[in-house]
Amino acid sequence: MSFRARHLLGIEHLAPEEIRTVLDLADRYVELNRRTVKRTDVLAGMTQINMFFENSTRTQSSFELAGKRLGADVMNMSMQTSSVKKGETLIDTALTLNAMHPDLLVVRHASSGAVELLSQKVNCAVINAGDGKHEHPTQALLDALTIRRSKGRIEGLTVAICGDVSHSRVARSNLFLLGKMKNRIRLIGPPTLMPSGISEFGCEVFENMREGLEGADVVMMLRLQKERMDGGFIPSEREYFFRYGLDAEKLACAKPDAIVMHPGPMNRGVEIDGTIADDITRSVIQDQVEMGVAVRMAVMDLLAQNLRAERGRAAVGDVYV
Amino acid sequence: MSFRARHLLGIEHLAPEEIRTVLDLADRYVELNRRTVKRTDVLAGMTQINMFFENSTRTQSSFELAGKRLGADVMNMSMQTSSVKKGETLIDTALTLNAMHPDLLVVRHASSGAVELLSQKVNCAVINAGDGKHEHPTQALLDALTIRRSKGRIEGLTVAICGDVSHSRVARSNLFLLGKMKNRIRLIGPPTLMPSGISEFGCEVFENMREGLEGADVVMMLRLQKERMDGGFIPSEREYFFRYGLDAEKLACAKPDAIVMHPGPMNRGVEIDGTIADDITRSVIQDQVEMGVAVRMAVMDLLAQNLRAERGRAAVGDVYV
Amino acid sequence: MSFRARHLLGIEHLAPEEIRTVLDLADRYVELNRRTVKRTDVLAGMTQINMFFENSTRTQSSFELAGKRLGADVMNMSMQTSSVKKGETLIDTALTLNAMHPDLLVVRHASSGAVELLSQKVNCAVINAGDGKHEHPTQALLDALTIRRSKGRIEGLTVAICGDVSHSRVARSNLFLLGKMKNRIRLIGPPTLMPSGISEFGCEVFENMREGLEGADVVMMLRLQKERMDGGFIPSEREYFFRYGLDAEKLACAKPDAIVMHPGPMNRGVEIDGTIADDITRSVIQDQVEMGVAVRMAVMDLLAQNLRAERGRAAVGDVYV
Repeated sequence: MSFRARHLLGIEHLAPEEIRTVLDLADRYVELNRRTVKRTDVLAGMTQINMFFENSTRTQSSFELAGKRLGADVMNMSMQTSSVKKGETLIDTALTLNAMHPDLLVVRHASSGAVELLSQKVNCAVINAGDGKHEHPTQALLDALTIRRSKGRIEGLTVAICGDVSHSRVARSNLFLLGKMKNRIRLIGPPTLMPSGISEFGCEVFENMREGLEGADVVMMLRLQKERMDGGFIPSEREYFFRYGLDAEKLACAKPDAIVMHPGPMNRGVEIDGTIADDITRSVIQDQVEMGVAVRMAVMDLLAQNLRAERGRAAVGDVYV
Repeated sequence: MSFRARHLLGIEHLAPEEIRTVLDLADRYVELNRRTVKRTDVLAGMTQINMFFENSTRTQSSFELAGKRLGADVMNMSMQTSSVKKGETLIDTALTLNAMHPDLLVVRHASSGAVELLSQKVNCAVINAGDGKHEHPTQALLDALTIRRSKGRIEGLTVAICGDVSHSRVARSNLFLLGKMKNRIRLIGPPTLMPSGISEFGCEVFENMREGLEGADVVMMLRLQKERMDGGFIPSEREYFFRYGLDAEKLACAKPDAIVMHPGPMNRGVEIDGTIADDITRSVIQDQVEMGVAVRMAVMDLLAQNLRAERGRAAVGDVYV
Repeated sequence: MSFRARHLLGIEHLAPEEIRTVLDLADRYVELNRRTVKRTDVLAGMTQINMFFENSTRTQSSFELAGKRLGADVMNMSMQTSSVKKGETLIDTALTLNAMHPDLLVVRHASSGAVELLSQKVNCAVINAGDGKHEHPTQALLDALTIRRSKGRIEGLTVAICGDVSHSRVARSNLFLLGKMKNRIRLIGPPTLMPSGISEFGCEVFENMREGLEGADVVMMLRLQKERMDGGFIPSEREYFFRYGLDAEKLACAKPDAIVMHPGPMNRGVEIDGTIADDITRSVIQDQVEMGVAVRMAVMDLLAQNLRAERGRAAVGDVYV
């Protein structure tokens, strides 16, 4: 087996072969999810806990369905109303949870690095569902699967990522993944929303969207965090749309068969024109959601395999401590 | 099979035969739910998503238990804390959800027609769990089952519906159902809470409750929405109870064996006297709750059968797109 | 079988033999929970409803996992957003729920006695998950299991309970359990936080923590409810920690092998020093969480056995009304 990770904390330390293993398995789960009977027993008897310190109905639902379809016992913990409010530390929360013997822990947290810290305190597999501005690995994997199914490959493409790159963990995880797979990456956005030190990723930076889109196979729009506007990063929604909103005219600069992506939820008329979003000959935004469930099933399946193997080595019989 | 609907959006377009099919199957689920072991595999491997844009612990719980007892994977989406707050449109939410491949979607929404709109965008079965002032079909079906089990029939009865008829989707769905089944319907309430154009339903309207209850087999009380009071519709709780609250003295105007119904939650001492509500020789309010789970199991069972048949026709093997 | 209770409302009326039956069965569930595949069919097809009128992520999660691992259909009802807010009484809520045919009802409520009241209105097994200042029986049982596994016995020990005894249902349930098992109990805390009439439990009371800890086998710290501080019970966190916070120096007064317990969530630096909490040679705080899931599985298993037996006696076949 070529997926060796104990946890999925980010894309940064995955090997290209591990990424391909996830995508190959996810392809099979796409087929399963299209059936009427879509439950398996891959995680039967195992416990998955979703701990979302930040709200995300969309991502949490995707993980919840993934786990249930794999046959796991899935529990959502609403951390907004939890002991954390009573002053408990993140580490105490992690240790408490660990004592309940979960097998898979899916964590979203507002602080970069919080998920990795937590993973060091538990003896189950941890999946990063987004930590601060750091990484959102399953998003990059589902984007890769969507691209590969649409373009036939995930290598040698020109991918334009447009918008608030500097605050985006989605962009960051995609930069790692697309770079490992030898794609050409172009970042488009106002200088105030562009991270410093971006040159290390070997990508080109464009302030002018039309120039940046030229020859792109894939146009990946980022969600505009409205709270950035008050911070002085962006003058107004209208001005932003005029310069960086994807419409038919700007999209014409990309390749004629370029696909349009967005991680959702969309601000129609701000970062993307509604007509483009709904044009199923160009937009693969619904596909991304579909691939999301499949990729999460693949990741949890692979991590559970590694967990079983590790426990099998460590313990007599099936019991671990 | 005589239940042909793809979705359950309302009672208005159901045939009497379809209603009877639901009630007959629900009778069998009532028996199942009274057993200690009450799980079946009717929806095994299928995904049910409950999307409640309006809070309703009672209705959501009823659908959740119904789905779990049928063996479905059930996911609740709390739409109050979801992407909808981030500005996503209802249609985008529907498309996103659809891409996760649910088989059954249970939706409550504050706007009349929102559920039907949503049903046009998805390729699963949609159940209306209440939309604005429009319809609440499973409530009317559970009321019908309660009446039929108590009175031995659901035809040729005199049914008095009392209270805020104009704002009530419960009343509206019941008007359709009871009318299709050839019952005599009497509406009781202050003129400010009576809808205009009610004559098209062929029912009698009474401002005086004692007159309206005369000869009734069934007394169906509606919940008083307290927020109506500030709107000038109703003078005060006390005045309302005096004129339209069901107590022993007013109930004496109905037939001696008339049954008392309420969709819950009750405002004791406002629309109904506590003694009447608790009198199990007259009140079937607990039965309504019990019938609710059974009726929802029957509806989901029938819709799933139609879904399987449709997919079987449309696709090679068991896969659909 | 030696566990005869219909409900688990408190420790007060349990026989020592019943307590031992729970602990013995829980020992087996501890082993199950340490396996990768940890689901059984003990409650398959049965319905468990968790009704938490007070928030408690930790206790609710423990019950949820316990039920899911036993194969039950588990439903959480968030009572903060429910009909209770629409003015429904506790009894109406109970009757409504009962009509949905749950088999196990887990209830937490802010009022002492509310859970017992509710248990009289339903025909399923009720488990008290904490009611006001009255009892929290599964906490006392998990504490007992933790002690028994650590000390080899649950009799003849000296147990010091330290902190806000007067407001603590945890302390109260532990006083009953430890007393029934013939342990020596010492209560430590400021007189303002000590209940009156405590002498009936036959325990010693200490204002000085060092004196109270002398010779203790078990040091059980209570959570400090911060809202007590405003009430004038406690001068300040700093002063409280100085006098009643467990640190290495005070712990040295207890036996060299004394174990340290806390029901969580902890206020580090208020009632307990972080170093002591993390010292796995003394602290069994994580074990308590682990034992919690196992004890709840044992309790629900035993109550379900009694329920099945009772229904078997009452009804023809498997049907009950």
